[in-house]
Amino acid sequence: MENSSDVVIIGGVAAGPKTAATLMRRNHKLKITLFQKDEKLSYATCGMPYFASGDVNSFQELTRTSYGVVRDADFFENTKGFKAITLSEVIKINRDKKTVTVKNLSSGATYEHGYDKLVIANGAHPVKPVFPIEDHPNIRNFVTPDDAIHFRKLAQTGQIDKVAVIGGGFIGCEVAEAAAGLWGIDTTLIERENQLLPYVLDPEIAALVKAEMITQGVKVHTGVSVSKIKNSDGKITIDIDNGTKVECDYVFLCIGVKPEVMLAKDCGLDIGITGGIKVNSKMQTSDQDIYAGGDCVESINQITGKEFYIPMGSLANRHGRVIAENIIGNIAEYKGVVGAFLVKVFDQNAGSVGLSYSSAKKANFACKAVWGSFVDKPDYYPESESMMLKMVYDSKTMQLLGLQAVGKGDICRRVDVFSSLIQNKANVNDLLNFEHGYAPPYAEALDPLHHLAGVAIAQEKGMDFIGPSEGIDRIPNPIWLDVREIEEAEEAPIIKDEEVIKIPISELRKSLDKFDQQRNIIVICRRGPRSYQAALILKAAGFDKVHVYAGGTSGIV
Amino acid sequence: MENSSDVVIIGGVAAGPKTAATLMRRNHKLKITLFQKDEKLSYATCGMPYFASGDVNSFQELTRTSYGVVRDADFFENTKGFKAITLSEVIKINRDKKTVTVKNLSSGATYEHGYDKLVIANGAHPVKPVFPIEDHPNIRNFVTPDDAIHFRKLAQTGQIDKVAVIGGGFIGCEVAEAAAGLWGIDTTLIERENQLLPYVLDPEIAALVKAEMITQGVKVHTGVSVSKIKNSDGKITIDIDNGTKVECDYVFLCIGVKPEVMLAKDCGLDIGITGGIKVNSKMQTSDQDIYAGGDCVESINQITGKEFYIPMGSLANRHGRVIAENIIGNIAEYKGVVGAFLVKVFDQNAGSVGLSYSSAKKANFACKAVWGSFVDKPDYYPESESMMLKMVYDSKTMQLLGLQAVGKGDICRRVDVFSSLIQNKANVNDLLNFEHGYAPPYAEALDPLHHLAGVAIAQEKGMDFIGPSEGIDRIPNPIWLDVREIEEAEEAPIIKDEEVIKIPISELRKSLDKFDQQRNIIVICRRGPRSYQAALILKAAGFDKVHVYAGGTSGIV
Repeated sequence: MENSSDVVIIGGVAAGPKTAATLMRRNHKLKITLFQKDEKLSYATCGMPYFASGDVNSFQELTRTSYGVVRDADFFENTKGFKAITLSEVIKINRDKKTVTVKNLSSGATYEHGYDKLVIANGAHPVKPVFPIEDHPNIRNFVTPDDAIHFRKLAQTGQIDKVAVIGGGFIGCEVAEAAAGLWGIDTTLIERENQLLPYVLDPEIAALVKAEMITQGVKVHTGVSVSKIKNSDGKITIDIDNGTKVECDYVFLCIGVKPEVMLAKDCGLDIGITGGIKVNSKMQTSDQDIYAGGDCVESINQITGKEFYIPMGSLANRHGRVIAENIIGNIAEYKGVVGAFLVKVFDQNAGSVGLSYSSAKKANFACKAVWGSFVDKPDYYPESESMMLKMVYDSKTMQLLGLQAVGKGDICRRVDVFSSLIQNKANVNDLLNFEHGYAPPYAEALDPLHHLAGVAIAQEKGMDFIGPSEGIDRIPNPIWLDVREIEEAEEAPIIKDEEVIKIPISELRKSLDKFDQQRNIIVICRRGPRSYQAALILKAAGFDKVHVYAGGTSGIV
Repeated sequence: MENSSDVVIIGGVAAGPKTAATLMRRNHKLKITLFQKDEKLSYATCGMPYFASGDVNSFQELTRTSYGVVRDADFFENTKGFKAITLSEVIKINRDKKTVTVKNLSSGATYEHGYDKLVIANGAHPVKPVFPIEDHPNIRNFVTPDDAIHFRKLAQTGQIDKVAVIGGGFIGCEVAEAAAGLWGIDTTLIERENQLLPYVLDPEIAALVKAEMITQGVKVHTGVSVSKIKNSDGKITIDIDNGTKVECDYVFLCIGVKPEVMLAKDCGLDIGITGGIKVNSKMQTSDQDIYAGGDCVESINQITGKEFYIPMGSLANRHGRVIAENIIGNIAEYKGVVGAFLVKVFDQNAGSVGLSYSSAKKANFACKAVWGSFVDKPDYYPESESMMLKMVYDSKTMQLLGLQAVGKGDICRRVDVFSSLIQNKANVNDLLNFEHGYAPPYAEALDPLHHLAGVAIAQEKGMDFIGPSEGIDRIPNPIWLDVREIEEAEEAPIIKDEEVIKIPISELRKSLDKFDQQRNIIVICRRGPRSYQAALILKAAGFDKVHVYAGGTSGIV
């Protein structure tokens, strides 16, 4: 690209500034102009729940560099070397003239600004609820800095007693914690689907997140829809379709976001089937002089090869780099997304990467799942913590498809490793060969990921694993065999309608005559390995109808 | 393999029991006999420093399953289904007859035991010091359970005032912490090389570990050799070759281990050039009926393709699985090692994977390094911690070669991800494309690994980065340009013999006339990004002799 060229960027939060900064690093002679509708630039949107919760002291911290300087127009001009113009909305893209029409939101004046290359990075906007909402200043989205600041002020001054959060996705879970945590506000979380964090977690794993919410005092309603939000003289009431009424003085609407595509649509750029702007692997739209990145674009899922909408600050930053390199004339490809997620829910970490079992099923993989409950360090090490993992793989090709994780333990490390493996089309055997960093303060000699691979192989060799809270129905008239030690079994007994027999694993070989070979036996322990071992003992002794309750009692909610 | 076959396993700590347990899972009709010289079986060797330190309450915890059952011969027989015979040393392998000669260490009797397949997993033994040592009960290795128990008893009862640790590798660092930490014992660490953790860390990264040791009160001597350890009426004195004498009442000899190969050598099996038993990718020795695994074997480094000796409990477990699968007749390959390490040194985590710069150089890679100091979560998030990373890559192919990390931050996640990437022969571009799990409690929008990839690309485009504590000599008569904010620069000023100019990055563009274009300018900030940005500004203004001090003031020890 020519030194004298004009690059215009629409949007100043993540992908926009990242594009501009990278461009300037590569060619300082470029003329870059970034237009931002709002007053604020480059704030950490994803940090807003932690400002709302009080974990982050002032909103300013979310707008500052690590060395305390506010990322405003001066910062971008003096440090990064490009021009950012705030309170200026691009209202039209004129592709024929290669200009944008800009409205100065202070003066109301409009003008045209030419471009050689244009970058659309204007993000997403909240989905509009389908139910009627009566006006109230405390019924709000959680999208803009003002949303966060408004809540924080009221919470901090004790003006909120009851909060309702509508939508149990990432943001919904984060603001529910923000309200109920430090501020101790009575909080109700309402989700239309039958589980929290739908689409990214399977139901039995999401159930662990819901259990944590409930433990921490949040009232959770799943599988119900809001029919109306009313304002009666300043008092808010939420009517739920099951007849429940939730009274509160603050409502967060967290029902998702949609890509901002009006400008792109108006000027005739291709829009993808998920509603985001369609871009190629260079992040180029259907007009080769116009790029797009961040929450306004459609992604490709690397595992399914299908279109996918996934608004994430981390991806927006990576888009920015790819756009800049391509504008400069270097080659950079964006290879799509595997979908790595993390979310903190009070004392539990939750996360996933790749496909859940239900998404894998939908995408027609010959998918199977395995589960396990693990410690993140050796049991003997003082700070060892638990986590429940679920792995999804293709039983034909043994390709890894996805990992889900919930627990106090270090799930991030496992999600990230699994992400790098599935990005690389790894299979179960590659997972077995993965070499992890090992020392007792950090890990066991075999990582939970190795164990999951081992369980998958056992499953393929014919062992029947039942997932937590699932599959029981398919096993008629079972006996539950609890192979935990007597003290463990007494401390946290398994309560079932069916018969439960308690035999510690070390006694099992001597007790085989106690069982009827014709009955189904479901073996259970605390985390899984003992019941697997017990099932092997039973099978070796000629028992056929043996099933392992994967994840053990740790997975029972 | 036939159901009636006999498998004999020599060694009962890690690879041996793992082989036996996996074999039984695959074919419960096999007849397996495991011989163990010691009384104890399957204890967590790597946990011994944490028992010594008091972090782990009783030694028993290291010998128990997670549900509290001791892993003794009864456990292996009743739960895992194989026979483990303790206090029985295999003293000879008779390949012609396919038997082993076993000595019962209680009775002294010897007998022969036949095998169809034999597994050698008898570990390693401590390297014998080259310097003379006078007898004393408190001059010991740290290898057996007794070594750990002996120290712990004396420490706990206040009978040790001064400890000396000889050898600054992993075990040496761990026992130095064990002594100086909870027990508060005056501790001296002596290492022959010029740095701690030689071979796995480069000097400037190891310097951060040494700094932590010193901060925590450990006296560290590097680059000196012990000439003698004397016992004068029960008082121990260590003579160091620089004239120093260290008096103490306990000495840990942690100068490394050697593979145990006597049995293998005696019966004519091939021994590798590193001194370990030579095995193929099936973990088979030069005799197809004899397998070997654990600390007694030689590994292949996946990056260099060269022989490598790396005794690690985690690898021993993986060997065990591969051996078992191959004995059964399934195909399993052990693809070699990339060398992932972690070690806790007081409040700092240290680790590495792949090749250090010096090993990469030795292996004739066109290697280059980049550094960076990072936070593991956004700065605004309350529990954000720092870490220094160094990445080594091949500048011809851009292949990733190694990562080193030290800091309070979450280095494990980065070491593991990097491990999975280099196992997969990934390059710098793959690292840029790596999709990490992102949410403010766990990570920044761009991971430190992404930034390292960015720095490598900048370096290849001609930016000159100087590593912490290195390379300064090659830059004659420099001016140091400190681009931190005024308050930061005043709080922790840079002390240099050369001229230091302080200009916050935001002021730099206006201050370019202050510099002589002929002089070398070394730009420095706290962690690196600002100095890189400043260098870009200087270069854009026509300055040629610009160098970035990578890792910033965080890397100065």
